[in-house]
Amino acid sequence: MKIIRVNMDHLETRWEPVLPAPALSPAEGYERLGGRALIAKILLTEVPPQCEPLGPNNKLIFAPGLLGGTSLSSSGRLSIGGKSPLTGGIKEANCGGNGGSDLARLGVKALVVEGQPADGKLHQLHISGETVELLPAEEWRGLGTYDTAAKAQERWGADCTVISIGQAGEFLMSAAGVVCTGHREQNSRIAARGGLGAVMGSKGLKAIVLDSAGTAALPLADPKLFRTSARRFAKELIESPRTGRKGATHMYGTSAIVAAVNEMGAFPTRNFSTGSFEAAENLYGQRLREITLERGGKVGTACMRGCVIACCNMFVDENGKPIVSTLQYETIGLLGSNLGIGTLDEIAHLNRLCNDFGLDSIEAGAALGVAAEAGLARFGDKNSFVSLLEEIAAGSVLGRVLGQGAAVAGRVLGVSRVPVAKGQAMPAYDPRALKGNGVTYATSPMGADHTAGNAFGIRQAVDPLAAAGQCEASLKLQLDVTMLDSTGLCLFARPPVFGDPQLMVDLINGRFGWGWSVADLEEFKKTVLKMELEFNEQAGLTSADARMPEYMTREPLPPHNTVFDVPDAELDAIFSAL
Amino acid sequence: MKIIRVNMDHLETRWEPVLPAPALSPAEGYERLGGRALIAKILLTEVPPQCEPLGPNNKLIFAPGLLGGTSLSSSGRLSIGGKSPLTGGIKEANCGGNGGSDLARLGVKALVVEGQPADGKLHQLHISGETVELLPAEEWRGLGTYDTAAKAQERWGADCTVISIGQAGEFLMSAAGVVCTGHREQNSRIAARGGLGAVMGSKGLKAIVLDSAGTAALPLADPKLFRTSARRFAKELIESPRTGRKGATHMYGTSAIVAAVNEMGAFPTRNFSTGSFEAAENLYGQRLREITLERGGKVGTACMRGCVIACCNMFVDENGKPIVSTLQYETIGLLGSNLGIGTLDEIAHLNRLCNDFGLDSIEAGAALGVAAEAGLARFGDKNSFVSLLEEIAAGSVLGRVLGQGAAVAGRVLGVSRVPVAKGQAMPAYDPRALKGNGVTYATSPMGADHTAGNAFGIRQAVDPLAAAGQCEASLKLQLDVTMLDSTGLCLFARPPVFGDPQLMVDLINGRFGWGWSVADLEEFKKTVLKMELEFNEQAGLTSADARMPEYMTREPLPPHNTVFDVPDAELDAIFSAL
Repeated sequence: MKIIRVNMDHLETRWEPVLPAPALSPAEGYERLGGRALIAKILLTEVPPQCEPLGPNNKLIFAPGLLGGTSLSSSGRLSIGGKSPLTGGIKEANCGGNGGSDLARLGVKALVVEGQPADGKLHQLHISGETVELLPAEEWRGLGTYDTAAKAQERWGADCTVISIGQAGEFLMSAAGVVCTGHREQNSRIAARGGLGAVMGSKGLKAIVLDSAGTAALPLADPKLFRTSARRFAKELIESPRTGRKGATHMYGTSAIVAAVNEMGAFPTRNFSTGSFEAAENLYGQRLREITLERGGKVGTACMRGCVIACCNMFVDENGKPIVSTLQYETIGLLGSNLGIGTLDEIAHLNRLCNDFGLDSIEAGAALGVAAEAGLARFGDKNSFVSLLEEIAAGSVLGRVLGQGAAVAGRVLGVSRVPVAKGQAMPAYDPRALKGNGVTYATSPMGADHTAGNAFGIRQAVDPLAAAGQCEASLKLQLDVTMLDSTGLCLFARPPVFGDPQLMVDLINGRFGWGWSVADLEEFKKTVLKMELEFNEQAGLTSADARMPEYMTREPLPPHNTVFDVPDAELDAIFSAL
Repeated sequence: MKIIRVNMDHLETRWEPVLPAPALSPAEGYERLGGRALIAKILLTEVPPQCEPLGPNNKLIFAPGLLGGTSLSSSGRLSIGGKSPLTGGIKEANCGGNGGSDLARLGVKALVVEGQPADGKLHQLHISGETVELLPAEEWRGLGTYDTAAKAQERWGADCTVISIGQAGEFLMSAAGVVCTGHREQNSRIAARGGLGAVMGSKGLKAIVLDSAGTAALPLADPKLFRTSARRFAKELIESPRTGRKGATHMYGTSAIVAAVNEMGAFPTRNFSTGSFEAAENLYGQRLREITLERGGKVGTACMRGCVIACCNMFVDENGKPIVSTLQYETIGLLGSNLGIGTLDEIAHLNRLCNDFGLDSIEAGAALGVAAEAGLARFGDKNSFVSLLEEIAAGSVLGRVLGQGAAVAGRVLGVSRVPVAKGQAMPAYDPRALKGNGVTYATSPMGADHTAGNAFGIRQAVDPLAAAGQCEASLKLQLDVTMLDSTGLCLFARPPVFGDPQLMVDLINGRFGWGWSVADLEEFKKTVLKMELEFNEQAGLTSADARMPEYMTREPLPPHNTVFDVPDAELDAIFSAL
């Protein structure tokens, strides 16, 4: 596998061999890295940590995980990374769909976009088995991601994967994500967080088209070991009471947890002012499934080829017309309860607009909540939020404020209740009632990001309302997900490999023949976090950036009326053992 | 002298004794500190450096200098400080007028405003020889600083000094300063920088009224030493070819340097895109003096009682009606050449609006320049900028964006050419053509602030276009001004005490009898900078915040076509010898 370098200064592309790993250590060279780990290494090696995130010295990296492009279930997530304009630190965001698998099958270990076109024009990059071409895309300026994908597939073929930005990315908004088409009706997967869509916009890149026709699954160093392990992995997922055909994950997708988070009192409601929502029942996963099936939508579909979990849905309107695929938990929280909106139809509509404009629904939802608190919209009134989203797509001054995310919106609008960490909006778990997530939001190199270490899953083991034990728990979670994010595996596919790390080692060894042990795997996880922390330190992030917003340490959250009280000293010590 | 504590949580005030200095070291206790030094010490002692600048844990401090309230010429500057919402670090800004002298004569070493009123109401603080009272001021909400001062003087007497915020401070804008009435027609002195007006707004404090009637000059430990030294000080200023009656400082005020900075190619023009302005001649100090005198305005007046330099002006319109007192160099740069505006009348009009709304003309001017680059106004078209300033005063969304200053304006509007350091707009010396100022902007704990160490005055000794020697020069300047800012002395009054540090020591010893030596003075200067750097480090500022904007290291500035090229390693080492 090779690296594709795309130089936007000179509009040139080239293939480049992969920097070999001189030693076994994953911290050396690029060879033994993938996805999030490879992004960390490239950024630390090639990008000045103090650079302007939207300037020519930042790089935007697309990397499949180490196991991408194989037949392994749920392994095709695409990692996208760069220095974040939102947090000022390192960022990796990943998405489902076929982008990761396609890129891997095309032989691409990483696609690295560098520089900035002098003329400010938009371009598209087309990658197939034979060619890599950079072509004009000015004619797509101003299009949403749905239309961009349609135009690109019209030109290059319906089976191509299209990775694109919407208006938000073109306007260099920090709430802009990168949208990727997925399997069948799953046409809007999004690497949402950290403003990577703005980085793509700053590179003058409107879309990347992947044509993997004629490619095959990647070669295996030890086919027998790999296939045995992959089969066991799939079998465990299929037979699991959680991810199997009768499990909540398959049946309800991420929305399965609405009820539980609301009952915990951690469901962000009306700009994080309370943790339970009176209309939460209307948003339950079961309700989502019922409505969808009644109307002829779909549930239990896959976002990527060959995923045995199949957690996705296609939410449709009363006439069966698709609104959004997939309507997810975080979106239900941030565009739903957080805005006082209590119907799935309304949330789905707002979600579609976010996807189309290329906006992170978490960041946008948090910014809309702040706007409502400032009196620019009304909690519970969907149309008032639709108007604000349309301002974002139009690039009006108000839209540009909101498009920069919750922190800028709060500062400009004079609102002090702003749910962010490292400048990034919190996902749908209020950290005052799920304190382990507060620790992750504060300390993760990724900022407020549940996928960096979500303590919801360990709520039985660690009391979510207690301050004690949260740092230890968060650290373990943060380490574990680095491996998922570096192999292309979905978070939902974690039980088999978390339960038996040897299985992950066997998959790696089966694919590459590196002879890894479980100890190597543990070392790998630490290395990833350490590289990211090192980048952030050089970028100027300090313990001051590893805090909850001050108001959350002071303002009790109903119904438990707790504040975030994990001591600063514990937060500061979390990585001391790495 | 005592400290007045104003608790805005409970709307209470109290007098408090001064924390004694247990040793000679100025770093111990509050006793041997004043102005900027005292502010640094109080913040470092009492304010959590990571606090929200606009939250209840920040404090807003007003402190006269050590020599304030005496008969010494030019010693009455008032220092105002707190954690800055603009830079996220420590901030001291000082202004002329009678505020410093009045506060000192009222026996106040520092006025410390703490907490935040729960009801969000506005208040006024009245201090006289007998009483300290906190009273409602909701009826002044929305008033500009001119009207606020008029109302306050109507109520409390025309001789009172009024310190107030305008609309910008009420809206918590980071470009908001604190405005202080001065001597006679000098009714609008402003501690402009760092957003301290927003901190005052966040405390719910609209105005402070100082009634020093019946007070006298402060007692002297060694009257003979003090008076001899003070006489020598005044004599040197009066007889100096620079500050004396025929000197440029007295004749033209700060505007004396327009010609020289323009000739150096460092005069910010059209959003810092070039360093010389074709209409600069219209803005020369000589021209300002001519026009003013022709129209019956005033030149050569004093902003504070007893100043022998008297550098101020009252700029009037064609009918002799006052527009602004004083029209100053930085304003001429930022609201003039930086906006492509080439007449003093137009600049004075914009200046008056800034003063009235309580806006830093540097920060506002830089934000307007960014707005023009974004197409929201037209360089050279005054009315387009008046409209934008009116948006700020009205608190519209656009106004709130611009009121947050140049950095936020650039981020929201998608402009990458944003002349800021530590998030604060640069004064009117482009650092690519006056590199010593670039070093000061980057490294000073105060952010981009010429008063923290202005290399313009040493341009003959250190080549402003060379990278070499700038850090050493800047460090010396930065150290020297700490003493001015801590004694209440004006920058224009520096020659006698810079020329002979023993004179400063004699003044201190004459006033207090501390038995200081010149070595103690040198130690004092270092202590001030070290306290400020310590606060900033704890607040999370790092070397990443000690940089010029990336574009200034890349984009050559006409006419010399130089970039800022002082090496990062030199910037990082500047304070290593402290």
